[in-house]
Amino acid sequence: MSTPILDNGQGVIDPDVYFQLNKPPASLPEFESKLTAFVEYHQRLDNKIVFITSGGTTVPLENQTVRYIDNFSNGTRGAISAEYFIEAGYAVVFMHRQHSFQPYNRHYTHSHTTFLDYLEPKEDGTIQVRQEYANKMHQVLSKYQTVLRENRMLLLEFVTLPEYLFKLQAGTKILARLQDKAMYYLAAAVSDFFIPSQKMSEHKIQSSEGALTLTLDQVPKFLKPLVSNWAAKGLIVSFKLETEASLLVPKARQALTRYGHQVVIGNMLTTRKQAVTLITKDGERAISLTDEELANGKEIESLIIPELVQIHQHWIQSGKTD
Amino acid sequence: MSTPILDNGQGVIDPDVYFQLNKPPASLPEFESKLTAFVEYHQRLDNKIVFITSGGTTVPLENQTVRYIDNFSNGTRGAISAEYFIEAGYAVVFMHRQHSFQPYNRHYTHSHTTFLDYLEPKEDGTIQVRQEYANKMHQVLSKYQTVLRENRMLLLEFVTLPEYLFKLQAGTKILARLQDKAMYYLAAAVSDFFIPSQKMSEHKIQSSEGALTLTLDQVPKFLKPLVSNWAAKGLIVSFKLETEASLLVPKARQALTRYGHQVVIGNMLTTRKQAVTLITKDGERAISLTDEELANGKEIESLIIPELVQIHQHWIQSGKTD
Repeated sequence: MSTPILDNGQGVIDPDVYFQLNKPPASLPEFESKLTAFVEYHQRLDNKIVFITSGGTTVPLENQTVRYIDNFSNGTRGAISAEYFIEAGYAVVFMHRQHSFQPYNRHYTHSHTTFLDYLEPKEDGTIQVRQEYANKMHQVLSKYQTVLRENRMLLLEFVTLPEYLFKLQAGTKILARLQDKAMYYLAAAVSDFFIPSQKMSEHKIQSSEGALTLTLDQVPKFLKPLVSNWAAKGLIVSFKLETEASLLVPKARQALTRYGHQVVIGNMLTTRKQAVTLITKDGERAISLTDEELANGKEIESLIIPELVQIHQHWIQSGKTD
Repeated sequence: MSTPILDNGQGVIDPDVYFQLNKPPASLPEFESKLTAFVEYHQRLDNKIVFITSGGTTVPLENQTVRYIDNFSNGTRGAISAEYFIEAGYAVVFMHRQHSFQPYNRHYTHSHTTFLDYLEPKEDGTIQVRQEYANKMHQVLSKYQTVLRENRMLLLEFVTLPEYLFKLQAGTKILARLQDKAMYYLAAAVSDFFIPSQKMSEHKIQSSEGALTLTLDQVPKFLKPLVSNWAAKGLIVSFKLETEASLLVPKARQALTRYGHQVVIGNMLTTRKQAVTLITKDGERAISLTDEELANGKEIESLIIPELVQIHQHWIQSGKTD
C-alpha cells in the first residue's frame, strides 16, 4: 500500500504530488471565478487585499465519510481580524470553514442567545429585534451593510483538507496578480496528518472488531511552495499554536527559516485571546491585553492588525519584492 | 499501558469501569438540577417526555486538545424530530452537540443566509426582519415562543464523548422517574472508538516525526446498561447509520437482540432524508418520501414521529413495563 517512489521514505509526499494524487473539489471553478472577479475589482481601485484563512480543516477517515479528524478552531481569530483589516482599508477574502465564525455575524452566532431569541413579533405583522439588542446591533449591521455595498468582503468556504489545499493554491495564485499589495493571513487550523484516499476504508469502519489502529501520513508542507512560488511577492503571515510554552518561539523561528516568509504569530491554546508573539526575521514582539482590557471586551486583534498593516506598508515601500 | 484486569482482552472495557476511569464533566451538577426541575414540572402535569440526543460526539486525541475525531452529524434529524414530538404533545429534553442544529432555530442557521442578512435597520432606530422573510418566520417564532412560555423544551449540551456518556447516564436515570411515559430517542452520532485519557498525548502531537499511528479502544456499549438499568421502563429508540445497504437491517436486528430494546431506526448516509426503516421485535416497516414530497420540503420526521407515538401508546397500554 505504500508509494515509495512518491514519498521521502518517511511518509511525506511532495506538495505537487499531493495535487496529482487527489481530486480537486467540485466547487473549485466557482471559487476561482468569484475570486478573480473580486481581485480584478479591487485591482482597478488600487486597493490592498488580505487573503484570510480561518477555521479548521477536516480529515476524513472513510471515503464515504462518517468519521473524520478535526482541528480545534471556531475561526474566532480570523473573523475578528477581518473586521480590523476592513477598518484599516483592506478588502478581505475570507476563506473559512463552513459554519465557523464569520465577520460581523460572529457577534450573534455560536452563543446561547439563539437567532429567534433576538426577535419579537409585532401586531402589524412585522418582526422586530428586541429593543435591548437593537442599539449595538445597529452599529454592527450598518458596518456589515456598508461592507456588502462596497464589495469589500468575499466569503469563501472549505470543509476538508483537500478542499482547503486546492483552494489555497488556486486562491493565492489569483491573489498574486496584486503582487506586494496582497497579504496572506493564514489563521486556519490545518491538519498535519491525513489518510490518503487510496489507503482509506471505503465504508464506515465497523466497531465490532475491538481496537482500531489508524496510520496517518504527514501532510506536505504547503507553506514552502506558497512562499516560493504561488504568492512570492505578497506579505505572508502564518500562525503557530502550541500547548507547551517552551516550544512556541523556537518552532515559530524554525518555520520562518524553513519557509522564508515574513511573519509568524505564535500563540498558546489557553491564552490566545490575551497574548501573542509576533516573530519576524529581525526580532520578536510580545502583544498582550491586561486582564482589565480583556474583561472590558477589548480584542487583541485590535493591536495585532495595525502592527501587520505597518509591516505590510514597509514591505511595499522597501520594494524587497523586486 | 494496557489495563488487562479491566477489559475483555479485546480492548473493550465495561461501561461501569468507564465511569470509574473518567472524570465527570464540570457541568454535570447543573445539568442534573435543570433536568430534575423539568421532569418534576411535567410529571405533575402527567405529560409524556421524550429525551432526544442529537449531533456528534468528539473524541480528543490530546489531553490539552488541539485535535479530535468527530462524527459526521449536523443534528438535523434530532432537531426536526423535536418539533414533531412537541406537536404530538410531548415535552422535549433536547441534549445536543454544542452549535449543532436546534429545533425552530434550525430554519435560520447553518445556511448561506446569515443572521444579519435577515435584518434591515429602520429610521426610527428599530431593526426589522426583511418583509420577504417575515411571513414564514412569524409562524416559527410564534411556535418557538409558545414552547418557551409553556416550558415544553429543555436545551442541554455536550461536546466530547465522556461529557455525552456521563450526561446520558445521569439524564436517563432522572427521566426514569416517569417510567413508561418517557421515550428515549437516541439520534446522536456517538463515537465508537476513543483514546483513554491515560494513554493520550498530554500536549499537541508534533508533526515533525513523519507518519502518525493512533490506536483507539472501542467505546463500551452503553445501550446495554441503559436498556437494562438506567431507563428500564421507558420506550427506547436507537439509530443505525450505515453506508452499505446490505448491512443495515441485519445490524439493526442484531442491536435489538443484543440490547433488548424496542425500536431501531435504520438509515443510509446518502438517503437518510428520504427513507428509513423502523425495525421492531415483530417486524420492519419502510418509511419514505417520494421525490416530489422531498422537493416540496416535506420532512420524513413528519412520518416517523407519529409511528413512534403510536408504538409508545401501545407500550404504555400493554403495561409490559411491570
